[in-house]
Amino acid sequence: MPKTARWAATLTLTATAVCGPFAGPALAAPQPGTSGLYAPSAMVLTTGHGEYAAAATPERAVTLTCAPRPAGTHPAAVEACAELRASDGDFDALNGTTGAFCTKQYDPVVVTVQGVWQGKRVAYERVFSNECVKNSATAALFSF
Amino acid sequence: MPKTARWAATLTLTATAVCGPFAGPALAAPQPGTSGLYAPSAMVLTTGHGEYAAAATPERAVTLTCAPRPAGTHPAAVEACAELRASDGDFDALNGTTGAFCTKQYDPVVVTVQGVWQGKRVAYERVFSNECVKNSATAALFSF
Repeated sequence: MPKTARWAATLTLTATAVCGPFAGPALAAPQPGTSGLYAPSAMVLTTGHGEYAAAATPERAVTLTCAPRPAGTHPAAVEACAELRASDGDFDALNGTTGAFCTKQYDPVVVTVQGVWQGKRVAYERVFSNECVKNSATAALFSF
Repeated sequence: MPKTARWAATLTLTATAVCGPFAGPALAAPQPGTSGLYAPSAMVLTTGHGEYAAAATPERAVTLTCAPRPAGTHPAAVEACAELRASDGDFDALNGTTGAFCTKQYDPVVVTVQGVWQGKRVAYERVFSNECVKNSATAALFSF
């Protein structure tokens, strides 16, 4: 193989291997009974200070897609998707596994999850007494 | 530079150059008055057949992040973000620029947009009389 061709092949393979996790399409787990091959799983998560999302300015917002592979701007998409699969999409079932020590300071933060999980709409809101409690409520999903 | 080091440098540079557009973090346009440097812009868009989102199974769902660069599973993130910027985030202002010819068949599809646009919460829903009308309502945003 000529040197140029070898280089081109190497670069293509590198790009494919390295970019695979980031460039995935919006497909999700197969969903029987629909015309599509996959049920969508795409969400946007926000967090802000306050007791209610309606009154709290969203300070951070991240996207999360879980299939065919974890993706999005969530800083720990792989772990977050694993937690969601383990709880079968039950956000309330995600409760404190990290054993963190938090103060009892009351500075409420509210988390929202909106979008679609395995073909079903998600509209979730949960308030935590402070940022530390929020981050320890799950290993990854609410830590962004 | 030894041959191995040169290869390593080349591969790293390739990965950075090629993956840059996909691997961006969840930062968005600067937002004065908050502790963060950027206001978030992250959304999830769904589409399904029906007149109301509450009654329509979400057949497709995509994520869209617009800053610092367009990203997400939306198939035309760059164009979609450009439309949103041009309309200053006013989804109702996005009205038919493609001049497509659609039939008058009534097979309603409903589109939802949820999440955050430049630091402000978005909860948008719009029904179109059929898929063709939906896709021609915007050049890119609702075409997914």
